[in-house]
Amino acid sequence: MSGPTGIYLDNNATTRVDPRVVEEMLPFFSEHFGNPSSIHSFGAEVGGKMREARARVAALLGAAHDTEIVFTSGGTESNNTAILSALKVAPDRREIITSAVEHPAVLEVCRHLAKHEGYVLHIIPVDKQGRLDIDAYKAALSPRVAVVSIMWANNETGTIFPVEALADMAKEHGILFHTDAVQAVGKVPLRLAETNIDMLSLSGHKLHAPKGVGALYVRRGIRFRPLLRGGHQERERRAGTENTTAIIGLGKAAELALVHMDQENTTVKALRDKLEKALLETVGHCFVTGNVHDRLPNTTNIAFEYIEGEGILLFLSRVGIAASSGSACTSGSLEPSHVLRAMDIPFTAAHGAIRFSLSRETTEAEIDQVIAAVPEIIGRLRSLSPYWDNGAPRAEAFKPEYA
Amino acid sequence: MSGPTGIYLDNNATTRVDPRVVEEMLPFFSEHFGNPSSIHSFGAEVGGKMREARARVAALLGAAHDTEIVFTSGGTESNNTAILSALKVAPDRREIITSAVEHPAVLEVCRHLAKHEGYVLHIIPVDKQGRLDIDAYKAALSPRVAVVSIMWANNETGTIFPVEALADMAKEHGILFHTDAVQAVGKVPLRLAETNIDMLSLSGHKLHAPKGVGALYVRRGIRFRPLLRGGHQERERRAGTENTTAIIGLGKAAELALVHMDQENTTVKALRDKLEKALLETVGHCFVTGNVHDRLPNTTNIAFEYIEGEGILLFLSRVGIAASSGSACTSGSLEPSHVLRAMDIPFTAAHGAIRFSLSRETTEAEIDQVIAAVPEIIGRLRSLSPYWDNGAPRAEAFKPEYA
Repeated sequence: MSGPTGIYLDNNATTRVDPRVVEEMLPFFSEHFGNPSSIHSFGAEVGGKMREARARVAALLGAAHDTEIVFTSGGTESNNTAILSALKVAPDRREIITSAVEHPAVLEVCRHLAKHEGYVLHIIPVDKQGRLDIDAYKAALSPRVAVVSIMWANNETGTIFPVEALADMAKEHGILFHTDAVQAVGKVPLRLAETNIDMLSLSGHKLHAPKGVGALYVRRGIRFRPLLRGGHQERERRAGTENTTAIIGLGKAAELALVHMDQENTTVKALRDKLEKALLETVGHCFVTGNVHDRLPNTTNIAFEYIEGEGILLFLSRVGIAASSGSACTSGSLEPSHVLRAMDIPFTAAHGAIRFSLSRETTEAEIDQVIAAVPEIIGRLRSLSPYWDNGAPRAEAFKPEYA
Repeated sequence: MSGPTGIYLDNNATTRVDPRVVEEMLPFFSEHFGNPSSIHSFGAEVGGKMREARARVAALLGAAHDTEIVFTSGGTESNNTAILSALKVAPDRREIITSAVEHPAVLEVCRHLAKHEGYVLHIIPVDKQGRLDIDAYKAALSPRVAVVSIMWANNETGTIFPVEALADMAKEHGILFHTDAVQAVGKVPLRLAETNIDMLSLSGHKLHAPKGVGALYVRRGIRFRPLLRGGHQERERRAGTENTTAIIGLGKAAELALVHMDQENTTVKALRDKLEKALLETVGHCFVTGNVHDRLPNTTNIAFEYIEGEGILLFLSRVGIAASSGSACTSGSLEPSHVLRAMDIPFTAAHGAIRFSLSRETTEAEIDQVIAAVPEIIGRLRSLSPYWDNGAPRAEAFKPEYA
């Protein structure tokens, strides 16, 4: 079976596993396959590599202690675990703070808890640039709040939130602060030891490690309750035989992410900026969504007005370009993404929003191809659009049924 | 790095990933690495392989519908999910039934629920052969019970429970029946479609698939609540980006397990019987624990009296033989396993219990080596034992502090 060929600009959905990560993992499938809890030689080698992986992940996060890293099955488990743990250790605090643009692995958990467990949920809004309403955040803080869960960077627009400052404010009220940093880890330098962030979620497959592995940073000294119970693994914080092979892969990926951190913020950023500038210049009636002044270096989310994102993706796919509209988790849905709706992006634009997310593997030649291909695709789709006529939008507004 | 060499008889702890499974997985790390929720070509190939994997796992279980398979991160997550789901869908039923010899991923969850959530827990005892007390089980059944969780086969002794009959009895009271079949799947032919079992847990790494992946069988039509929330994956039953590579590996492992099912019950069983018979004949003061009449074909758990299991394992390890005492999850603990204690095995014997668990990769030459090595090791350890003198046990009973 030959691999797909083309230009992959959907790295916020998932990344290619770095071949160096695969190489690091391979001996642990069929040679050093032992259970690290076992005392015999098949398990012995594994324990040391697991410790190395934990240290590598701790280094990427700038954590003070390796033992603050709890390996999980991924970002969703980390997010669920963090929020539920925070509620269990503070049963008298019955309120939760989150933002309107969180990933469903945070937002849906919070909504479920509000609906079925009686928690009061504060969903902090964002402005048209995707920036958090800090006044609303401050107003929601109180000793009644058990946990704040606010993402480090948004998966769709790349907008970065000031989580360190938000954590400082939460601490004044004795509130545990969790951040879903699935999109930030590996792209933004982190120094968790110097912050008041209590818990942080990361996902392996967003940083060139395999799917099915992630981690939850749990600051030393905070109270914690596991989600999965049974065995003593991960210092009683996550039961279940350790996913040794993938954890070792995540460790390697963390090491590589540190090595390539500068590249993310120079080369990758420059390619993203080149792509964005060229498309804004050559395609009319489009704009960048999110906070362009504080944003992940690899992400641009461009709203092409008066056309459908699904159509753009299909045409892009035909010429070998992979991007996404909305988030992968909600694709198949016809509604625009909750993130763009929270930013009050007009429907005429939100429907045509496309996220291009680069990685350190993206080349300039690829970006040049995308720059060459997109304008014609947009033009062709607009020529078919009922909201477009003779090179300009029709006067009537786009009014979808649910508006 | 070269792999460990030796004889691996610890397959109930974890198995070597079959090289054919690794081969099946490899293209999905760095070639077909897309998120299956994405519409572009990097994700397209993955969806088909996931469907194939689901069908293969369903076939191994004899499930009526592929959609009854929910992929998880492993046996512990499957067990936790099943029990918590059953309680949530029947909030008025406040009792739980389990057995005294369950894996901690069931027993600790149940104990936690009893201690912290007020559930009434019925822990059904076993007899000296590890057989479930059916009268006690029947007496505990009532419409107050939300869920029964009883394992298909015990991880330490291999004893098989009559779960199909137990499920029939539970159904009469409208109780959901879950079985932890982590040790049975791949070793025992299953026909779930013909049973009243509602949920079943399996773990990839017990059947030559990688760690970090498992499945929960959820019978069509039963009510269910997810443990992990946040995405629409697995038909809303398990949120989180699918661990595509490992799931595809699990599918291949399931296919291979079906192919090799006869071999487990002929070749592997014959080797196990040869090992067991030879050790019983050549080593005095030892006996097989568990139900020898209804047992996994690959497992023998032999109690060598008057010596410590840890000592046996260390000597075995020195001559390249990997086995285990108790379960891996509780190794490091000085107490004998809860399974052997539940069977009322005398401490003098429980402390020296060793589990040899074979697989389809075990060879006759390996078994011959183990048969040759064990008697000398036992003899040497007994010569050092304070409970042994001149080739026979001392008159005084072995009385550990906690007895």
